[in-house]
Amino acid sequence: MEQFRVIEIKESIFKDNDEQAHLLRERLRNEKTFLLNLMSSPGSGKTTTVLQTIKALKDEMKIGVVEADIDSDVDAKSVANTGTKVIQLHTGGMCHLNADMAKQGLNALGTEELDFVILENIGNLICPAGFDTGASKNAMILSVPEGDDKPLKYPAMFSVVDVLLISKIDVLEHFDFDANAVISIAKKLNPNIEIFQISSKTGEGIEEWINWIRIEEKKWNNK
Amino acid sequence: MEQFRVIEIKESIFKDNDEQAHLLRERLRNEKTFLLNLMSSPGSGKTTTVLQTIKALKDEMKIGVVEADIDSDVDAKSVANTGTKVIQLHTGGMCHLNADMAKQGLNALGTEELDFVILENIGNLICPAGFDTGASKNAMILSVPEGDDKPLKYPAMFSVVDVLLISKIDVLEHFDFDANAVISIAKKLNPNIEIFQISSKTGEGIEEWINWIRIEEKKWNNK
Repeated sequence: MEQFRVIEIKESIFKDNDEQAHLLRERLRNEKTFLLNLMSSPGSGKTTTVLQTIKALKDEMKIGVVEADIDSDVDAKSVANTGTKVIQLHTGGMCHLNADMAKQGLNALGTEELDFVILENIGNLICPAGFDTGASKNAMILSVPEGDDKPLKYPAMFSVVDVLLISKIDVLEHFDFDANAVISIAKKLNPNIEIFQISSKTGEGIEEWINWIRIEEKKWNNK
Repeated sequence: MEQFRVIEIKESIFKDNDEQAHLLRERLRNEKTFLLNLMSSPGSGKTTTVLQTIKALKDEMKIGVVEADIDSDVDAKSVANTGTKVIQLHTGGMCHLNADMAKQGLNALGTEELDFVILENIGNLICPAGFDTGASKNAMILSVPEGDDKPLKYPAMFSVVDVLLISKIDVLEHFDFDANAVISIAKKLNPNIEIFQISSKTGEGIEEWINWIRIEEKKWNNK
């Protein structure tokens, strides 16, 4: 297991989060590090998706992970078990990450050598949508068991992301979930959104998702 | 369908939420209205549980519902279809309800005639744990697909509630979910927590949950 640190992060003192996010994004562009901010409700499968993504890409690029949680370090342990560099952030009670908190995690991780960093945001479909973390791209996961009405109820999250992953599609037959309805509302909210239907259990759709990362990482890092 | 109003609530101007919550709780005790605050992640089955609870109790007590969402009124429509009095609150971007917001909903609903009101809080496992709504009792739902590590990651929510409903247990065989692990950690965080395992699909455990409401409503309303 890769060793990892746990960092109790402090709330940012910067008033202008957008400016902090802009500066962090510029730094990451200069360092040639593609930062993906991954958001979802608790239990949608963020960590499982992170582990699948590492497995698929670890021989192609140098990967790091920043895990953020209110408490516990179970996610960082799972990532460290793959031999990947990882930092666990504890936010105390805070319900989202902002650019300064992301920077605290990235500085602890050390990004200079890394091609690709995944920032696993706090499990929350509301607050993280309001804060630019400085990421190169933003993705969200909606799992089938959560229901197909989520784009109606949480429109901000669906509006700000570049990618929507519809996860746990292997259990589709056990739930009332109309994937076409989700896709239609999400595209109305966000016409440029990319949507992949995935199952970490069966592997369905994972290759399309991995290809999207490959392409975006190359674009970002000018390869 | 019962008609219902949609109210765009304003952020509370009161600094002392605990005092507002205390005053609301006293008012509800005098009016003999038992208020249950129901919390969970998005998509854990709050509205489905509300509908099951209405079905089981509507011939025994006068019930009302306050639905809170960032946006949309799909939940209020579902409740109104049962002929139950309901108000839909829209919080804009706000990630939780406080006592003053709960009061805005209850005032719009009109509570004098009601024995039992369910306040369906915003879908969020973090922020609502920090705000007393003035409810008589607090309950949360954790659904099987969310995973058994949630009490470790979101300890505050498990610590503040009177009841934990473990929902969607009909799909247990399709997920890695150790209910005993959840129960053990939840009881360590909160020794007095009541736990019911339920399935809205098969009806399993619903009667135990309904009985708990029967007993608590009687105690609250001095019957």
